[in-house]
Amino acid sequence: MKNASAWLLLLASGAAHGANPVTPTEIIEAARADEWRAVDPARTLLMTLAQGTVVIELAPRFAPRHVGNIQKLVSQGYFDGLTINRVQDNFVAQWGDPSAKRDIGLAKRTLAPEFTIGAQKDFQRLPDPDPFAPEVGFVDGFAAARDPKAGQTWLAHCYASVGVGRDNAADSGGGSELYAVIGHAPRQLDRNITLVGRVIAGMELLSALPRSLEPGGFFSDPAQGTRIQSIRRGDAESVKLEALKTDSASFKALIEARRNRRDSWYLRPAGHVDLCNVPLPVRARKP
Amino acid sequence: MKNASAWLLLLASGAAHGANPVTPTEIIEAARADEWRAVDPARTLLMTLAQGTVVIELAPRFAPRHVGNIQKLVSQGYFDGLTINRVQDNFVAQWGDPSAKRDIGLAKRTLAPEFTIGAQKDFQRLPDPDPFAPEVGFVDGFAAARDPKAGQTWLAHCYASVGVGRDNAADSGGGSELYAVIGHAPRQLDRNITLVGRVIAGMELLSALPRSLEPGGFFSDPAQGTRIQSIRRGDAESVKLEALKTDSASFKALIEARRNRRDSWYLRPAGHVDLCNVPLPVRARKP
Repeated sequence: MKNASAWLLLLASGAAHGANPVTPTEIIEAARADEWRAVDPARTLLMTLAQGTVVIELAPRFAPRHVGNIQKLVSQGYFDGLTINRVQDNFVAQWGDPSAKRDIGLAKRTLAPEFTIGAQKDFQRLPDPDPFAPEVGFVDGFAAARDPKAGQTWLAHCYASVGVGRDNAADSGGGSELYAVIGHAPRQLDRNITLVGRVIAGMELLSALPRSLEPGGFFSDPAQGTRIQSIRRGDAESVKLEALKTDSASFKALIEARRNRRDSWYLRPAGHVDLCNVPLPVRARKP
Repeated sequence: MKNASAWLLLLASGAAHGANPVTPTEIIEAARADEWRAVDPARTLLMTLAQGTVVIELAPRFAPRHVGNIQKLVSQGYFDGLTINRVQDNFVAQWGDPSAKRDIGLAKRTLAPEFTIGAQKDFQRLPDPDPFAPEVGFVDGFAAARDPKAGQTWLAHCYASVGVGRDNAADSGGGSELYAVIGHAPRQLDRNITLVGRVIAGMELLSALPRSLEPGGFFSDPAQGTRIQSIRRGDAESVKLEALKTDSASFKALIEARRNRRDSWYLRPAGHVDLCNVPLPVRARKP
């Protein structure tokens, strides 16, 4: 198992709960039960595709109006039968009704943007410099950035982030078209578009979708895209997930392990961790 | 075409060759013929899958021994009939013979690492800060980093980078297992593993491969992976591609357009460009 063995050790070791966990996987496995939070099903959306289910955790603290509007759309079955009509390689998968013909019922077509919120007392700052923002870290379980001088905080565009498509006008989106990041973090979108959450399970279903090579990754006929069977609000029966608390000691240890890998495969620790290269651990809830 | 129109403008506009190209696509389309270089077929590999062909441009300046060894392997048909036996979401797709049973013929099983090379006079430095390296930029058409004090230059792990799997020992790889980055740039791998090139066409075939959820993204049975029909050296008949020169005025303009987007969709230019978020333009050669 040349390489395989090393990579396994390196990346996803099923190693024992040792006294001194070293690898990210060991650290996650050694985390105490109280370092995990139950993912609130009321804050989730379930997207059902033929391939399986994608679970999105919403971020109402950052985008309360958009989250509320999307929940209204979902309660009306707005997305059911529509398609993922855009899959641009190394960028986004996007879904909704590009014709804007479908009835949005009680929801709103457009909303004022929610690009930033004010200062957050529980911002957990990463000491690592970030070239896109004065400071970065985690808030409410999400990768975020802030500008202390301006008193602003915002969600960062990382792999698996979910946002709201819009036209040129800042207030031209409302949630009837959504996208998930499937490539390298497009941080240039930060503060330009409203983020509403992140995929916490089933991301591999979106990332493996066939790409469109047409301009912008749109399928010229949306029917060519992957069909969405339904998007529903999660409930206690369907969402039994927990996430590692970002203010836990184990999460801090995980970040340090990614900043300076101490497993034997690495010869030169990076000495730096990128905000968007810290996967936020999510697992099935322990019975 | 709500959103679609804006995204199209934003990302992949088929706009006219205007007097003042603004978007990345406009800049690429307006580039003069002499700002493109023909991709040297002798420096390429063609991986044929049922889905299509992936073209890899090799980087002999950075890893001459590994590139030579891989070319020997390929000339012997080493990879033909093997599989892409690892697809880890947001990380890598990897192929080869994890059993290390296949005859490597005239090639070598292992080589001394080629993690860095010396100072390069034609290093085209990006002014943007990088948290992983003292300086970053482009060399020989590849995204690279350098440490002027140490007199070292190395290829950066970006989306589509191709590298050589290894075990824990630095000299335990040789090219009989290769990987391509299919997710957010894993820059922590820089200077820890030998990079040998990058995918310049067909990347969307690797990125859309079904993920394995097994540890490390390995398929426990390699036969579950996608079969490689063949990997061959490219020739003038099969590789008719050209790449925008990274020392051209149009490439500089492209970087600036990505650093500070001036198209009407963007409300707040980022003021920064990430080395790994500058797609290197490649197109079919103009007749």
